Amino acid sequence: MNKCWLRCVKCSRQSEFQLEGRCAQCGGTLLVDYDLEKVRSTFTRNSLSQRKLSSLWRYHELLPVRHLDSAVSLGEGGTPLIRLQGLGSTPDKKQIWIKREEQNPTGSFKARGFSVSVSLLAERGITKVAVPSNGNAASALAAYAARAGIEAHVFLPSDCPPLIVEECKLYGAHATLVDGMIHDAGKVIEDRKTEQGWFNVGTLRETGRVEGKKTMGIELAEQLGWRLPDIIVYPTGGGSGIIGMWKAFHELIALGMVEGELPRFISVQEEGCQPLVDAMADAAGASKAIKCEIDHSVSPTGLRVPLPPNLDLVVSILKESRGTAISVSKDEIKSAQLTLGKQGISSSPEGAATLAGWLKLQHTTDVDSAATVVLFNTSHAMKYYPVGVSN
Amino acid sequence: MNKCWLRCVKCSRQSEFQLEGRCAQCGGTLLVDYDLEKVRSTFTRNSLSQRKLSSLWRYHELLPVRHLDSAVSLGEGGTPLIRLQGLGSTPDKKQIWIKREEQNPTGSFKARGFSVSVSLLAERGITKVAVPSNGNAASALAAYAARAGIEAHVFLPSDCPPLIVEECKLYGAHATLVDGMIHDAGKVIEDRKTEQGWFNVGTLRETGRVEGKKTMGIELAEQLGWRLPDIIVYPTGGGSGIIGMWKAFHELIALGMVEGELPRFISVQEEGCQPLVDAMADAAGASKAIKCEIDHSVSPTGLRVPLPPNLDLVVSILKESRGTAISVSKDEIKSAQLTLGKQGISSSPEGAATLAGWLKLQHTTDVDSAATVVLFNTSHAMKYYPVGVSN
Repeated sequence: MNKCWLRCVKCSRQSEFQLEGRCAQCGGTLLVDYDLEKVRSTFTRNSLSQRKLSSLWRYHELLPVRHLDSAVSLGEGGTPLIRLQGLGSTPDKKQIWIKREEQNPTGSFKARGFSVSVSLLAERGITKVAVPSNGNAASALAAYAARAGIEAHVFLPSDCPPLIVEECKLYGAHATLVDGMIHDAGKVIEDRKTEQGWFNVGTLRETGRVEGKKTMGIELAEQLGWRLPDIIVYPTGGGSGIIGMWKAFHELIALGMVEGELPRFISVQEEGCQPLVDAMADAAGASKAIKCEIDHSVSPTGLRVPLPPNLDLVVSILKESRGTAISVSKDEIKSAQLTLGKQGISSSPEGAATLAGWLKLQHTTDVDSAATVVLFNTSHAMKYYPVGVSN
Repeated sequence: MNKCWLRCVKCSRQSEFQLEGRCAQCGGTLLVDYDLEKVRSTFTRNSLSQRKLSSLWRYHELLPVRHLDSAVSLGEGGTPLIRLQGLGSTPDKKQIWIKREEQNPTGSFKARGFSVSVSLLAERGITKVAVPSNGNAASALAAYAARAGIEAHVFLPSDCPPLIVEECKLYGAHATLVDGMIHDAGKVIEDRKTEQGWFNVGTLRETGRVEGKKTMGIELAEQLGWRLPDIIVYPTGGGSGIIGMWKAFHELIALGMVEGELPRFISVQEEGCQPLVDAMADAAGASKAIKCEIDHSVSPTGLRVPLPPNLDLVVSILKESRGTAISVSKDEIKSAQLTLGKQGISSSPEGAATLAGWLKLQHTTDVDSAATVVLFNTSHAMKYYPVGVSN
């Protein structure tokens, strides 16, 4: 097994590796630490360049499974990084790239988290899992649980895109629609999990998903020739993608695999459900902003997470990276989706939001004219069918 | 430019490389030949193992573009090859793999053909293209044409899955529904192409698509460690995927990259539209069978091609490879789709048909008990939403 342990981001207490993602002492988020001296012996630029494995398991030294043979893999990771072409308003030397996470199994970046998470669950003999989700986490869990022979129960807001609900059922999951938001779905699981014997794999509830999402950051660095981009624009709901990539970059820096500064993280949310934007704007910080009211006209996408499980951590990452958070409107998202479509890219509302956010920010932020900017397209348009495109 | 030229599969006449896919002399299909001596100097197992490019353009020496810079790429190819788990009825040592072509851009294997085809069109300054399609070729053309700034016109049977029609529009294509089958859509294009200035990129109409699809074969060999599988089960509509892979394997054998025999190709079609199955069963061969009547209850999928453009060639490939063709029912396809779903794989009806076909054939065919079998999942289930899964 890779030597690893857990560290609480709040009270810094170290503990043995386990599935449970919250500190027994203080309730803080537990993240995985590795023996980087040991990792360094086999995890090098050169050794990686020789690896045939193109899935995220090529980075197995930095994943907490006991044996690589335990990996529950459906071909996740190794997604394309495509350079966007002249976006009218960016005439300078900036390179705008899009990371096509929609080409993962189950059509979204959520596959990465659940490949690792379900591998850990399977190693420990867990037989029933449950997740609250706006959609894509549910279908990803459904697929990986199916592959591992684990029973999956997914709880979705009742306005979840119906295609995604059917996708969950295709993988054999038990899907339940819940009146309310993702945290209401989470409450149903917490209320019933003991009686039902479910392990709750909700965001930051267990220690594997962040590690899986971390591979977006490692892979991006490798694709850029072990260089970090200047700016990452990321659609932020629960925020574990940001946490994962931030963790990845720190590990790569500590390993001496990359040099320089952390990329600036720009989180994008939809207007009306923007706890992170509010927290960043508020001098009092996250703890106050999280009480924000939800506007019920906000679209049912992965961005609609009124109560992120660890907003403080995401805020601190944005600040550490000299990043920011911005909200965009439904119309700006739709317009960006059509712009990407006309470049041959099918983007989900969440993915399109990154372009919308970047187009709004690029002239107001002090950005080097030769900056490398990476947008994350977390899923594809047709998951939200009908999209409402006519021409 | 890679040195290449064309050869007619019917009259064997050689000619200069061009876009037009039919022999001016006899109307036969033109395929691309390469100077394999030259290819051999850079295209080796070792050099390929060092390449960072994970798209199909890693095999550029065997693609007919003038310059690698001309590649119109959205991240096609490099799709996962996943081993299926114990399929109840296969208790022996057979390895059943599934090639996840649905993880290509636009969610189908059609991306490969159009990446190469559109690159050639762009190099030659073509500005308007048209394609008749059952759906996935149309959305792939739409995406690559959008990327290249080429105007795309797609003609689809009126019962084409509505999600795919909307996907074409998302990429900015002009989509027209036609009463009838794919060949009726093709007739509309032929009637109007001169007046409209369209280049018809229908199956085997031009020389790039087969080359793009060929990369499925090269990639498969590389993923298997430069070994060929024993059996390939492929969903066959127009048949250019089979033609492409057959061509790939012959090129790899000629280059000394792989040894041994051609894999046996098993084509799968849906009952009621099975010109290839009929041609294989008929002593008189293809030319007679192609007159088969179409059953109008056949599903509107990529398998519904009553008049394949070069049935004779596909028949000869199946025979050369000691392969066969088999038809499966709608119910068998649905059942296979659910079986794959319960392994975490989202398969289109076409992809599921390969499992259905294999499950029917495995006990009747003389197959080594340790055979390596590869099924091709050409697209994913949700393209055909609603699929009609309930549980």
